[in-house]
Amino acid sequence: MIGRLSPIHNIAPELLASAELVIETEGEGITEITREVARFIEQSGAGEGVLLLYLRHTSASLVIQENADPHVRTDLVAALGLLAPDDGPWVHTVEGPDDMPAHVKAMLTGVSLHVPVHGGALALGTWQGIYLVEHRRRPHRRALLLQFIGSRR
Amino acid sequence: MIGRLSPIHNIAPELLASAELVIETEGEGITEITREVARFIEQSGAGEGVLLLYLRHTSASLVIQENADPHVRTDLVAALGLLAPDDGPWVHTVEGPDDMPAHVKAMLTGVSLHVPVHGGALALGTWQGIYLVEHRRRPHRRALLLQFIGSRR
Amino acid sequence: MIGRLSPIHNIAPELLASAELVIETEGEGITEITREVARFIEQSGAGEGVLLLYLRHTSASLVIQENADPHVRTDLVAALGLLAPDDGPWVHTVEGPDDMPAHVKAMLTGVSLHVPVHGGALALGTWQGIYLVEHRRRPHRRALLLQFIGSRR
Repeated sequence: MIGRLSPIHNIAPELLASAELVIETEGEGITEITREVARFIEQSGAGEGVLLLYLRHTSASLVIQENADPHVRTDLVAALGLLAPDDGPWVHTVEGPDDMPAHVKAMLTGVSLHVPVHGGALALGTWQGIYLVEHRRRPHRRALLLQFIGSRR
Repeated sequence: MIGRLSPIHNIAPELLASAELVIETEGEGITEITREVARFIEQSGAGEGVLLLYLRHTSASLVIQENADPHVRTDLVAALGLLAPDDGPWVHTVEGPDDMPAHVKAMLTGVSLHVPVHGGALALGTWQGIYLVEHRRRPHRRALLLQFIGSRR
Repeated sequence: MIGRLSPIHNIAPELLASAELVIETEGEGITEITREVARFIEQSGAGEGVLLLYLRHTSASLVIQENADPHVRTDLVAALGLLAPDDGPWVHTVEGPDDMPAHVKAMLTGVSLHVPVHGGALALGTWQGIYLVEHRRRPHRRALLLQFIGSRR
């Protein structure tokens, strides 16, 4: 065995709390939403369990990434631009040159993820933050569904 | 705070319903499976909660994407072909020129995702559909595991 | 309808078991952790339900991939190197030439996923294994959070 497993902690999943979080983006770029998501966890009375995040869009996405150097976010956006350039061989161009690249970027990074919750707080790693990535050039209103499953605090 | 959080809705997660969905693909391309998945939600008696989808394969994947213009699907497949071309520097070639690119595409897009369920229905965004992406050139039989956690209707 | 849906199996989600799994990586490459994860499922007394995996890092990631030919893993690492090369146009270079590519690779492959559990065992497909992908060149200690939601065996 190559890994070290901690003791196992058991609870009864007695609560499933849901809410919608609406974020106004300012156009292409990465917006940190960790504090907003943490506020949901706090208000929901969550104890131990898991938070599920879901974004209801096809040209924006959710990622867990580095929260220290803001240059990382600049480079993440640049990396996606190289993988899905505006001047790619796209057939779907009716919604503008940034639309099809936005769909490709959303497909590659995803719209659903989860984060464990421990002691009533998000169990993110030291350098992790939760980010909404806007792939369209213009500002958009984006809706996330947040759900906690676990015990009450 | 940059976001607007709705009131929180609480239920008790009393049900975990599971089933297998088998899809026959027609070779490389994107197949919408939203109706098939919705049928599971309806038959399971799901009320409020979350649907987890899992694909038991390594050369196909699951994505949430645009359900309006079919050109988007054409372009998504093309985008994946640019990111993992058949003539890439692959060592693993024994299963044909489309096999290793298929694994790369599956790694980039993923085999597990979730969608919230509200009022006994999938809480997809207006433009979202659930898709099975076949990365192999030939038709394949693909098995998904669907699981709902939440309340009964 | 294009799919075939099996009968639905219902249980009550009575258990949420959590543990931390620590893996020492040997530098850039893919480490199979299926056995370690299976040990958690066995020790937790899990019956029917779902396993959620979460990696608390931003330069490593989790993937479900082919467990047969080890050449596949070599090619997956090579594919990621082509998508996010060390000599890309990165602004964030203070942590070394492999740091920013590592963040891009982690963003593309993700740090959260789930696998269904059936009959007290992981319901992986025939060719699937669970892998930790280290994107940094040097060895690192990586922490995963494992959570099972479902019934007791």
